[in-house]
Amino acid sequence: MTDRVFINAVGIDGNPQALAVRDGRILAIGAEPPVLGAAEVIDLGGHLVLPGFVDGHIHLDKSFVGDRWHPHRPAATLRERLAIEKGELAAAPPIEGRADALIAQAAAFGTVAMRSHVDVDATTGLANLHAVMAAREKWRGIVDIELVAFPQAGVMSCPGTLQLLEAAAREGAEVVGGIDPSTLDGDADGQLDGIFGIAERLGAKIDIHLHEPGMPGVEQLARIAARTRALGLAGRVAVSHAYALGDVGPQALDEAARKLADAGVAIMTNAPGDRAFPPVLRLREAGVRVFAGNDNIQDTWWPYGNGDMLQRAMLIGYRSGFYTDADLLAALELASSAGAAVLGLEGYGLQAGNEATFVALPSPNGPAAVAAAPAQRFLFRKGEPVGEAAGFFAGAVKQPAA
Amino acid sequence: MTDRVFINAVGIDGNPQALAVRDGRILAIGAEPPVLGAAEVIDLGGHLVLPGFVDGHIHLDKSFVGDRWHPHRPAATLRERLAIEKGELAAAPPIEGRADALIAQAAAFGTVAMRSHVDVDATTGLANLHAVMAAREKWRGIVDIELVAFPQAGVMSCPGTLQLLEAAAREGAEVVGGIDPSTLDGDADGQLDGIFGIAERLGAKIDIHLHEPGMPGVEQLARIAARTRALGLAGRVAVSHAYALGDVGPQALDEAARKLADAGVAIMTNAPGDRAFPPVLRLREAGVRVFAGNDNIQDTWWPYGNGDMLQRAMLIGYRSGFYTDADLLAALELASSAGAAVLGLEGYGLQAGNEATFVALPSPNGPAAVAAAPAQRFLFRKGEPVGEAAGFFAGAVKQPAA
Repeated sequence: MTDRVFINAVGIDGNPQALAVRDGRILAIGAEPPVLGAAEVIDLGGHLVLPGFVDGHIHLDKSFVGDRWHPHRPAATLRERLAIEKGELAAAPPIEGRADALIAQAAAFGTVAMRSHVDVDATTGLANLHAVMAAREKWRGIVDIELVAFPQAGVMSCPGTLQLLEAAAREGAEVVGGIDPSTLDGDADGQLDGIFGIAERLGAKIDIHLHEPGMPGVEQLARIAARTRALGLAGRVAVSHAYALGDVGPQALDEAARKLADAGVAIMTNAPGDRAFPPVLRLREAGVRVFAGNDNIQDTWWPYGNGDMLQRAMLIGYRSGFYTDADLLAALELASSAGAAVLGLEGYGLQAGNEATFVALPSPNGPAAVAAAPAQRFLFRKGEPVGEAAGFFAGAVKQPAA
Repeated sequence: MTDRVFINAVGIDGNPQALAVRDGRILAIGAEPPVLGAAEVIDLGGHLVLPGFVDGHIHLDKSFVGDRWHPHRPAATLRERLAIEKGELAAAPPIEGRADALIAQAAAFGTVAMRSHVDVDATTGLANLHAVMAAREKWRGIVDIELVAFPQAGVMSCPGTLQLLEAAAREGAEVVGGIDPSTLDGDADGQLDGIFGIAERLGAKIDIHLHEPGMPGVEQLARIAARTRALGLAGRVAVSHAYALGDVGPQALDEAARKLADAGVAIMTNAPGDRAFPPVLRLREAGVRVFAGNDNIQDTWWPYGNGDMLQRAMLIGYRSGFYTDADLLAALELASSAGAAVLGLEGYGLQAGNEATFVALPSPNGPAAVAAAPAQRFLFRKGEPVGEAAGFFAGAVKQPAA
């Protein structure tokens, strides 16, 4: 593989930056362009360079990206919503193609890794999982995808689901999912015992959708934290949404945050538009790892979303009242390094020795990139241009002298 | 001027659409491409066609678009915020250039008209107004700009401001502004008497920034509605923000909505990220005209915003829980025809006889455009391509046969 030197870039702090790359890894990074004898030199034209984005929560089997427009159909209950979803997805083109289209769109926005939940239930079995596994094979090395076996319809309330979750974990899902153990399932201990049991037996991670509001939701978080501690699963358990943390007063919040931090349970938010959500800064200050995901993208649940994690960081900041550079950078971390840590990505981040994987975009620095979220992105994975980056920077490549 | 026929477009409902244009006006619009003998034919390549966007609330004199990045500086009080703003703007490049850069960016996103508030106060005098007037001259016919003389620092609490507002209205501001008559100014009747007096004497319109929360804010709206009725100014008075409408219960809300509708007072919202704001659908159902604006864009008040009114429509929908096609189209109306009505634009909208002014973008229909807000836009004003539209569609032009 040819050595490459990327010059004339700007770092997250707005200062000049250059990168030397050998065998897809960062050999050196700093203000001064390093000298590599036979390297190809690529002029990044003053673009900002950020690490590739990480989407910590996506549903690759649900999106209609790549398909026709599906007008949203309101549902009065969760069960009605699930029925509508089943019907529309059954009539839509196969999952593999739709997942492929959404991954391609996310990659075009600079996403290099994602955690995708995939529905696993008694009627679907492992069919969705197999389809998304096929799509992820195609993208391996460009967009690395971790899969969650997601019991969308419930665990204890849908007999057979626990066995399917275990089968999914054996077949390639790195993470076992859960959902609203009390309000949807009506058996919090049963669901949590079941999924933590699978995680313990198979060495899987856990990611639980928790929409339960207020104090009951906070009590659920305490249960999850207690089990995580008991089983020594620190760093391997996440709770997605955890709306309850946005509902309760400061005392209950701080108590919950301490339990989550002590247990090593991470919290995922997408900053929903019209309901309270976890207070990001307060959780981070308490030592809780908070990461971000796009969640639903143009599916039966809602029509929004485009797969762009930088726009997601902007939305998190916008919803959270993040104005200062430090706060904007916190939102960026949620969409990059925090998600990378939850996914356990190796060699992530712009420093020597790591993978030379970065997004170039027209912003003066990291905070400005979050605030404006310009749509133009150029992705380099292991030093190689992906998609439009090749064409855009073609004229900027100087062949090595000898 | 050459006749033009635009073919192979898609209308807001997703159906095929074609437009015939003569002398910058729409001669015919419909599914079937009209036949014009000697017309140039432009193939729009399946792009969606929407009317140009209208930004109903922008501050062209405050933005740092086109300037270096200005990290946000927190302020403990409104007066401290105003002092920070004065200092930073005094050290920034001249207003005319910054306003020009922001207008250019908005036009690139498909904005064809805007209402810009411009600070008028005892220290600034009419200097900002003159600078923004110079910028608007440059853009006339591409982006048409209505100006509001805006007493950012207060009216009654800053002696001399009323006289300056009147002078501004005489010199080219079509609209007289106001701001928080009680909480900032401490003299609601004084401020409202003053600005309604100017409007009556000079035939100006009125647009009042109202951040006052809860019931006091709702009472302020009642005062504004009463004066509007008394002076017969229906359709010529707007209240920007009106956060109070998002704070109060349904009974107070409906009562306020009825008063606003009866008086013909419009409400502007930008759907702030982290506080309650007016419930758009409920106000519309009560007969209140609701329109949208970007408000502050990358200035000392906050770092967000990019001038894109389609993204603003998305944010309004996202914050309001708009999922259905009908609701998404309501958000689009706020960013287009509702603003056009408030500004009093003539010949606005995609129908025969109107100006041939439209945005082409890659979406299957209007609701999908709002939900995804794709960044790519091509603006045609009076049938002529603006900016990148010319280059993009250059290959799609077939010269007339004879």
